[in-house]
Amino acid sequence: MNDLEIQIEELARKAKLASRELMAAPTKVKNSMLEHLCKLLESNIAEIEAANAKDLLHSEANGLSKTMLNRLAFSSSHIKMMVEGVRQVIMLPDPVGKVTKKWKLPNGMKMSRVRVPIGVIGIIYEARPSVTVDAAVLCLKSGNAVVLRGGSEAFKTNVCLANLIGEAARKSGLPAEVVSFVPTTQREAITILCKQRESIDLMIPRGGYGLIKAVVENARMPVIKHFQGICHIYVHSKAKLEMAKRIIVNAKCQRPGVCNAVETVLLDEKIAGKFGPKILKALRERDVKILADKKTNDLIHEKLEEPKSWSEEYLDLILAVKTVKGLDEAIEHIETYGSHHSDAIVTEDKKAAEVFLTRVDSAAVYWNASTRFTDGYEFGMGAEIGISTDKIHARGPMALEDLTSHKYIARGNGQIRK
Amino acid sequence: MNDLEIQIEELARKAKLASRELMAAPTKVKNSMLEHLCKLLESNIAEIEAANAKDLLHSEANGLSKTMLNRLAFSSSHIKMMVEGVRQVIMLPDPVGKVTKKWKLPNGMKMSRVRVPIGVIGIIYEARPSVTVDAAVLCLKSGNAVVLRGGSEAFKTNVCLANLIGEAARKSGLPAEVVSFVPTTQREAITILCKQRESIDLMIPRGGYGLIKAVVENARMPVIKHFQGICHIYVHSKAKLEMAKRIIVNAKCQRPGVCNAVETVLLDEKIAGKFGPKILKALRERDVKILADKKTNDLIHEKLEEPKSWSEEYLDLILAVKTVKGLDEAIEHIETYGSHHSDAIVTEDKKAAEVFLTRVDSAAVYWNASTRFTDGYEFGMGAEIGISTDKIHARGPMALEDLTSHKYIARGNGQIRK
Repeated sequence: MNDLEIQIEELARKAKLASRELMAAPTKVKNSMLEHLCKLLESNIAEIEAANAKDLLHSEANGLSKTMLNRLAFSSSHIKMMVEGVRQVIMLPDPVGKVTKKWKLPNGMKMSRVRVPIGVIGIIYEARPSVTVDAAVLCLKSGNAVVLRGGSEAFKTNVCLANLIGEAARKSGLPAEVVSFVPTTQREAITILCKQRESIDLMIPRGGYGLIKAVVENARMPVIKHFQGICHIYVHSKAKLEMAKRIIVNAKCQRPGVCNAVETVLLDEKIAGKFGPKILKALRERDVKILADKKTNDLIHEKLEEPKSWSEEYLDLILAVKTVKGLDEAIEHIETYGSHHSDAIVTEDKKAAEVFLTRVDSAAVYWNASTRFTDGYEFGMGAEIGISTDKIHARGPMALEDLTSHKYIARGNGQIRK
Repeated sequence: MNDLEIQIEELARKAKLASRELMAAPTKVKNSMLEHLCKLLESNIAEIEAANAKDLLHSEANGLSKTMLNRLAFSSSHIKMMVEGVRQVIMLPDPVGKVTKKWKLPNGMKMSRVRVPIGVIGIIYEARPSVTVDAAVLCLKSGNAVVLRGGSEAFKTNVCLANLIGEAARKSGLPAEVVSFVPTTQREAITILCKQRESIDLMIPRGGYGLIKAVVENARMPVIKHFQGICHIYVHSKAKLEMAKRIIVNAKCQRPGVCNAVETVLLDEKIAGKFGPKILKALRERDVKILADKKTNDLIHEKLEEPKSWSEEYLDLILAVKTVKGLDEAIEHIETYGSHHSDAIVTEDKKAAEVFLTRVDSAAVYWNASTRFTDGYEFGMGAEIGISTDKIHARGPMALEDLTSHKYIARGNGQIRK
């Protein structure tokens, strides 16, 4: 083992030990930790800003794009919003200890199934520094220790934030190791982290294709991916066209850079000729670039470029349009090229809608609504650590309950098996 | 790609396509498939026995042990029991389509969370041929296609059974590919199966250390392990000693070869001197070999061999005994050396019991009862595909509901995100 391997194994092992303390911590101790964190964030704004200024300087010198520099920038207003978020998590009910099932066996043994923390959760991410606090706070509230590995651009900001979380833990009587931040920007650290299956119970990668691939290829513990959204809206022959237009414009333009924005619109051939020009006009007014297949071009008398692939996540003001024969072809397209994230049908035909809702195998399926609603806050879960594109354990918006496992507790008076 | 890779990729791809049919199949179609299977099993007893006879002959020639040959043997009485099992699964409620949550958003959108099949489940196993039918039937009832890879000794029996399941599917109007059996005994097939993450949504390995390790190292899709049970019983200072004796004897002797049998007994030092000789006598009468640490030997004036490791799963009439200072050391031992499967405390002290139940991080924790109850049937789930030793998605006995995922369904009337 090289030094980095020894260092990361040690860090993960300490997280596991700390998780055993945290696992049994009552709600009020966990909330006290989060209260301390709010105060520490508020009283260390200058320190956080100074760390962020160093990251910005370093990244600018390295030629990071202006958009990326904007995402990296972290000022007092961001910190205040972050504190607001932590306060909201304090208010959320603690999922740990909740009895989800209770029954009695014929032999008199009293059974219950109870939510328990998972243990140690690894989060590997590339996004803004706010993820450091947002993700850690949800793990901690649900009784899990957390090992964080953030993007290298935000390294100093992340370390500063992670240290404050550790201090908050200590102030509430918990080991500081309930949170740890991998203290290096070396890429190798990801591979090493992925090997710590004795200590890390679950790995959550959040980021682009390269990051997700690296984690999936290397992880020897369970992984819940927060990956791509190649979302579709199918405009059925019996759609209200005004409604379809409003939904498509919202799903593409309201925030194009997110995973629940629509990437492909499927037009039923019965309405493509009539509806196509209308939706094109509306989208062009909002600077959306349209790509379309030959059939659509023929029907609406355009010569739009064809999309290079139907499986591309544009995350931008670009929309692919395809004309399909009907419901079956629409479902077939979504199942073949989609990412099983969020897909919608617009129609007044209840029967067609129900077929779509049943047969499209996605985390969220919509009838007459925008795909943009796939979100823990919008769904009323109070928080989200991300949107799972997996089908195991958590699927769709992943909130506090999804950060728990369960155990069976049996209380007897001497029962033995016959 | 070599021929085997092409063949297995094709098999997995067809399973995925078939799973899309099965996913939307109503309960009565799935039950009709299982009814057909019962009839086919009953009318093909001679054929199954003939296939099994070939497996037995081949394995005997290869020098398989008598115990293993006994496990492999598959006669008409086994087949009748198997049919009985299938009929029980027919009677179980279908988890698919069940609404697990229903609510309305402030904007009027109607939300529901609904159980859906996972898709394609891969089962890699080493056990008796009955697993082929038992596991497949649970996957199919919960709407999942299944790809089976059984032990090489039972190859012909397994292929025969898998073909009958395929025929049952066809007879009920479903594609035969809802079940497929990897048509080779080459070990390489496991590694290749583990790469089919585009087609296989979940892998369930059931078997010994080598098999589990091979799957965990190679799988690029989620894995739910059904692994070791290194189970403990801690006899607390305030235990009823007669009850403790009865529970230990049951947990060790009633069926020593299974994962929920006890492997280590922890004696509180306050009762070790008095209780030790009693439990030794009871176990020796049942031919149990006892291993013990020095402290126990000193307290009970014996010279028993020390166990080589506290993390060994004996699966035999062997029991390791250790004397501990008290509750804290007992929990520490279990967390350090156990496999988080099933652990019990025997005590009349409610407070000590609750600390144990909270702090021991195992799938099932018992107070005054035998660890042998960790089982889907005993817990009243009606069936089990195995006992998950993982903490993600399923933990402990894994039944029909654990073979499903969920989707969010949103029914609106034009809602867009503000």
